[in-house]
Amino acid sequence: MPQISDKGRLMPESPIRKLVPYAEGAKAKGRTVYHLNIGQPDIKTPEVAMDAIRNCTEKVIEYSHSAGNVSYRKKLAKMYQNIGIDVNEEEMLITTGGSEAITFALMTCLNPGDEVLIPEPFYANYNGFAISAGVKVVPITSSIENDFALPSIEEFEKLMTPKTKAIVICNPNNPTGYLYSKEELNQLRELILKHDLFLFSDEVYREFCYGGEEHFSAMNLEGLEQNVVMMDSVSKRYSECGVRIGAMITKNKEVINTALKFAQARLCPPAFGQIAAEASLDTPKEYFDEVYDEYIARRDFMVAALNEMEGVYCPIPKGAFYTVVKLPIDDADKFAQWILEEFEHKNQTVMVAPATGFYATPGLGKNEVRIAYVLKKEDLANAMETLAAALKVYPGRTL
Amino acid sequence: MPQISDKGRLMPESPIRKLVPYAEGAKAKGRTVYHLNIGQPDIKTPEVAMDAIRNCTEKVIEYSHSAGNVSYRKKLAKMYQNIGIDVNEEEMLITTGGSEAITFALMTCLNPGDEVLIPEPFYANYNGFAISAGVKVVPITSSIENDFALPSIEEFEKLMTPKTKAIVICNPNNPTGYLYSKEELNQLRELILKHDLFLFSDEVYREFCYGGEEHFSAMNLEGLEQNVVMMDSVSKRYSECGVRIGAMITKNKEVINTALKFAQARLCPPAFGQIAAEASLDTPKEYFDEVYDEYIARRDFMVAALNEMEGVYCPIPKGAFYTVVKLPIDDADKFAQWILEEFEHKNQTVMVAPATGFYATPGLGKNEVRIAYVLKKEDLANAMETLAAALKVYPGRTL
Repeated sequence: MPQISDKGRLMPESPIRKLVPYAEGAKAKGRTVYHLNIGQPDIKTPEVAMDAIRNCTEKVIEYSHSAGNVSYRKKLAKMYQNIGIDVNEEEMLITTGGSEAITFALMTCLNPGDEVLIPEPFYANYNGFAISAGVKVVPITSSIENDFALPSIEEFEKLMTPKTKAIVICNPNNPTGYLYSKEELNQLRELILKHDLFLFSDEVYREFCYGGEEHFSAMNLEGLEQNVVMMDSVSKRYSECGVRIGAMITKNKEVINTALKFAQARLCPPAFGQIAAEASLDTPKEYFDEVYDEYIARRDFMVAALNEMEGVYCPIPKGAFYTVVKLPIDDADKFAQWILEEFEHKNQTVMVAPATGFYATPGLGKNEVRIAYVLKKEDLANAMETLAAALKVYPGRTL
Repeated sequence: MPQISDKGRLMPESPIRKLVPYAEGAKAKGRTVYHLNIGQPDIKTPEVAMDAIRNCTEKVIEYSHSAGNVSYRKKLAKMYQNIGIDVNEEEMLITTGGSEAITFALMTCLNPGDEVLIPEPFYANYNGFAISAGVKVVPITSSIENDFALPSIEEFEKLMTPKTKAIVICNPNNPTGYLYSKEELNQLRELILKHDLFLFSDEVYREFCYGGEEHFSAMNLEGLEQNVVMMDSVSKRYSECGVRIGAMITKNKEVINTALKFAQARLCPPAFGQIAAEASLDTPKEYFDEVYDEYIARRDFMVAALNEMEGVYCPIPKGAFYTVVKLPIDDADKFAQWILEEFEHKNQTVMVAPATGFYATPGLGKNEVRIAYVLKKEDLANAMETLAAALKVYPGRTL
């Protein structure tokens, strides 16, 4: 029997996947499981998107342009221009989700063996994309002690080697909910320029910024036009994760032309997804207002509930719809399994994502979990009550 | 300005892409350009697929299972069982087009630096997927002299090294239209077993076999259950290239479980595409009968027309909807550009794909072009008349 590849062996399991059987077990016992572990919002996809799909009159679902439909790119460019990001339709590739955008960026810019610095905790799938590209992820630790702010430039420089080729940031951040300030981004700017690096900026949660804080795009960092590649996605903005439409955006022509060759090899992004995504650009402002009000209410409720629990610390997330929270527990993986397998409160339990899966440094995140506030407030209230009850009786409680 | 990667530099342009400006130039002059260069059929997508999309009642377009919707996989497994391929829903991953299936197979099974043997001429995008995976393509030349039959096992063994890890076949073949016989496949079977290789079998044109010849799937090669990975796609079968739904199928559990980790990293295949693909499985038999009749009529017409031209040799393709044809020309790339740029016949011209782009060995295919018979017969007749006229006056004519 032929052997599989080292890449295959190195590919990590999703940090949540191993908990799935326990969640299924809880459901089989008739328990309600509140999923705080996932980034799948319960918000409706905009009607304009669904209408465009339902009214589709095409006779043949043909390949689209490898860079994505021109009509969609033009309209998307206008959207960016409206929020102060000056790009045109030639400076973007429509991708199969944000996932493909980061894969294209890594494949285009980094050689196997090159290193990419990523503040941890980070979106776990970056590991998989890096392994696919043969690239080494070098984590730089951000800490819940200062609410996951950007590590200092000195810390970055300590970890740099001649192989360091790029930095990835996710802003607002999944999993921490942290929103990088303009000052932090300007520090990064200096570093990028000084060492002539690429900056890959994952901005898929751009629209989810709370409390009056403004999102500052890496695309607007002065003098970084040739260094910045922005990754975007419609998944969260329009609650249409399944359409698999993202974008890779850069003013660096060599990067866009090279990424286009990877795009040509896989032919095109999904046709129906592009139809939905293009129509979504006409989503009325009220939709976002409602979504915003809903998320901020959920966030405020959840953060307050968490911080009321003894020994729990939850920073106030300024963006996205996640938070990484410190719990009085010995081991987040054990806790996440235990609460599904052995605990119930009023026949309810919760599924959380152990933060260990979001750190690359072994041993970090053992008393932290990621919680997504993608459930309606009533469910969130039940979930918080359940979590509080669980923390009081968990055998590995550290208080 | 930071440097792009070696992979990026190595990525080939599509062999057709460089001709696009010349095709646009011809159109700008008011000429009709018959596209014999592409695999985009003009056949309608089945009504059942379009109806499923138009009747979509989902409220939230969520992530699907990373391996694809269970309902689709179960129904797809039944389809395979009906055509004698014994697989179940656990032995397949739904992918974003056949493109992703081959990428997953390469990433899962081959290390960077490993070699994969592919009979040339071959589907040019295999080059791109191999470069992405860091894998080296070793071409084994098949020849128009014997209608592109499988090279002998001795020829394969001559090219094998300790790095040889897999063989890729495309059956029926794009670009040649060749259909491998059961005998040829059994020879391959011996070779695969002897050297303990993987066999990646691209069978996306399975339904397009003509003249009573039967398709024999690599999945049914005895004793190769752990070696064979089949790649499939709905693009051609249902003329829905844009939906981007394919499948990677294997009975090797380690391979499927490992590929699933790559699939999890990219979250899921497109939701709407899966809806269309699942519904397409209910396409009535009459649809395929019509398509079959149409393609066989086109093929017979085109092959006869080509072989009537002086100095032209076109093997009779037994499958798919392409043929690689020998022309009395000095240089296929020059000819393909010339016919678009400088030639017209009754204000018409044609776009063909130079075969050089389908060979990995430099210098091969210089007097061959790939022609797709995806146009209706009337257009095909005009295209053949134009090609015949062009060959009579082409300055690089070799007769």
